[in-house]
Amino acid sequence: MTARPLIIDNLQYCHFDAEVFEQMHLGGVSAVHVTICYHEDFSETIANICTWNRSFESYPQWIFQGFSTTDVERAHREGRTAIIFGFQNCSPIEDNIRLIEICHRLGGRFMQLSYNNQSLLATGCYEAEDPGITRMGKQAIAEMNRVGLVVDMSHSAERSTLEAIALSTRPIAITHANPASWHAALRNKSDTVLAALTESDGMVGFSLYPHHLNQGSACTLEDFCTMIARTAEKFGVDHLGLGSDLCQKQPDSVVTWMRNGTWSKILDYGEGSADDAGFPPMPDWFRDNRDFGNIQRGLRSVGLDSAETAKIMGENWLKFYRDNFTPQSG
Amino acid sequence: MTARPLIIDNLQYCHFDAEVFEQMHLGGVSAVHVTICYHEDFSETIANICTWNRSFESYPQWIFQGFSTTDVERAHREGRTAIIFGFQNCSPIEDNIRLIEICHRLGGRFMQLSYNNQSLLATGCYEAEDPGITRMGKQAIAEMNRVGLVVDMSHSAERSTLEAIALSTRPIAITHANPASWHAALRNKSDTVLAALTESDGMVGFSLYPHHLNQGSACTLEDFCTMIARTAEKFGVDHLGLGSDLCQKQPDSVVTWMRNGTWSKILDYGEGSADDAGFPPMPDWFRDNRDFGNIQRGLRSVGLDSAETAKIMGENWLKFYRDNFTPQSG
Repeated sequence: MTARPLIIDNLQYCHFDAEVFEQMHLGGVSAVHVTICYHEDFSETIANICTWNRSFESYPQWIFQGFSTTDVERAHREGRTAIIFGFQNCSPIEDNIRLIEICHRLGGRFMQLSYNNQSLLATGCYEAEDPGITRMGKQAIAEMNRVGLVVDMSHSAERSTLEAIALSTRPIAITHANPASWHAALRNKSDTVLAALTESDGMVGFSLYPHHLNQGSACTLEDFCTMIARTAEKFGVDHLGLGSDLCQKQPDSVVTWMRNGTWSKILDYGEGSADDAGFPPMPDWFRDNRDFGNIQRGLRSVGLDSAETAKIMGENWLKFYRDNFTPQSG
Repeated sequence: MTARPLIIDNLQYCHFDAEVFEQMHLGGVSAVHVTICYHEDFSETIANICTWNRSFESYPQWIFQGFSTTDVERAHREGRTAIIFGFQNCSPIEDNIRLIEICHRLGGRFMQLSYNNQSLLATGCYEAEDPGITRMGKQAIAEMNRVGLVVDMSHSAERSTLEAIALSTRPIAITHANPASWHAALRNKSDTVLAALTESDGMVGFSLYPHHLNQGSACTLEDFCTMIARTAEKFGVDHLGLGSDLCQKQPDSVVTWMRNGTWSKILDYGEGSADDAGFPPMPDWFRDNRDFGNIQRGLRSVGLDSAETAKIMGENWLKFYRDNFTPQSG
C-alpha cells in the first residue's frame, strides 16, 4: 500500500466555507496557506482571524489552524487540513515594526512586503518606478527573519524582490507566480529573480490563476506541467511547489476590492481589463481542491519521477515550513 | 544538595525594568504573573504586549514569555523568570467574545471579569449592588474555559465571585487577596468565597499589598505566615499560593490611574483615602523579589513542613498552570 501523498497548496483566497473545507479533505490537501488580508489594517486583520477561529470551531472534522510542520504532519495523518495564515500585504503591521512579532504569535507565517503598489516596505509590481526596499523595509525584513515570518514577494516589483532576497538572512518565498519566460505578465517572475530566489533556498509556488497562465483559462495541463518540468531543469526541483491562488466562489466584487481596496477612486483592473474585469474561469483540470491529483498525474506524464513529483506537490513546502516558521535561534 | 525551591509570584505590577528583572533572578523567582492592563482596550493592550516584547529582547538573560508549565520548569532550570501575562479587567476583550481566544493566543492566562466597578461581565467589589454574572459574562466564562484563559475574581464582588465559581467548568483563581476574617477589607475574601473556591480546585494567591494586610505596612512576617497556616488548616494546603501585588517603583500617579482610569471625573481613592492617596510602603520583610526567602522561612517558623511550604511558594501554582492554561480537550 502506498502512503497518501502529501499535498500543500501555498496560496488560496477562496470564499472559505463548509463546501471548500470538505473539498480540501476530499482532495487530500494537508495544508493550505490562506490569505488573511489584502488591505486590512491590524484591527481588521484581527477581525478576519476571529472569523477563521469561528470556522475552526465549526469544522474541526476538516480543518484546524497550522503553526508548524508538526501541525501539517498531523493533518496529513488525520486526513484534515492545517490552515496556515498569511498576509498579501504589510497593511496589518501598519507603521509599527513590533506588530510583526504580534502577527507571528497569532499564526501569521507569510507576509508580502507590497501588494501591487508602493508600500511602507517595498515596491509593488504595478508601480512605474521601483526604488527598492525602504528604510522601514530593511528593518521589517530583519524582524521577520528574527521571529519566523516569511518574506513573500509575489506582488512586488523586480528590484525590490532582488533586494529582499539579498537582504533577508533567511530564505524568502514567491508564494504564487509563474516564470515570465513561459507567460509574460507583470505578476510573473524573471529568470533573474527565480535564480536568485532558488539559489538562496527560497521557494516559488506555481500559480493556477488564469492571468498567470499561458493561454489563460485555456492553458492545458500538459503545458502547465511542462513549464514546471522546464523550471525544475533550470533551477532544480528542490525549491518548487504549488501556490494555486485559487479564489473559488468569490464574487467579482472581491477581485475589484483586491485591486482597489480603499486607495483608488479610479477603477483599477489589475491583470484584467474593463472588458474582462471579473475573476477569469479556472482551467477545467483545476476547478478546486479535489483536482490536485490531476497535477500530480500531469507532472508524472511530462517525465518527472515520483520523488520529484512528491517534492513539488508538498514536500518542498513542508521542509521550507520546518526551516522558516520558528524564531531565529541564538 | 537541595534542589532550588520553585517560587512563583502570581501577581505583580511593578515598573518592570532591568533592576526588577535582575531581582527576580536574584530571588530565584521562576515565574511571575504580570498585569498587562487595568483599563486598556484591545489595541492599548497590544501596545503593552509590544513593550513587553521589547523587554524580552533586551533582557533574555533574566526573562522570557511564559505560556505553560513547561516554560516555568525551563525558567527554574535556567535560573530565569517566565513572565506570564494576565489582565486585571476584561477591557482588552471590549465587547467581542472572540477576542478572548486572540488574547489567549497572545499569551494571556488570567483575566479578571471586573476591576472594582461593574463591567460587561461581572460586578466589582466597590459597587453598591452586585447583580451577579451578566449574560455576556456567562458566555465569556464558557469561552475562557474553552481556550484556557483563567477566570480571576480578585477585584470582583461576592455574589459575582460565587456565581463565577459555580458557572466555570474549570477552577478559577483569586490571584491576589487575603481572607477577610484576618483583615476586613473590601478586597479581601470571605470564608464563604474561599471555601467555594478551594472546594472547586481554585487557587488563592496571598497578597502583600499593605491595604490587604492586618496592620497594613506594619504587618509582621509572623502574623502574615500565621494567617497562611490558619488558611491551610481551614481549606487545605493544596490551593494556596502567593500573589504579592508588588507594585515596586511605580509613582503614585499609577495607583491614581488604577483607581480612576478614564471612567471618573471625581477622584476615587479605592482602598486609600484623600490623606493616604499613594502607594503604601511595603512591609520591611518584603521589599521586592529578593525577599521570598523571608516568607519561606516564615512559613516554616509557624509550623508548616517543607512539603507544605514548597506547595505554597510555587508548586500549587505550577500544578494549576498545568491543568488550566491549555484549551479544553474534546
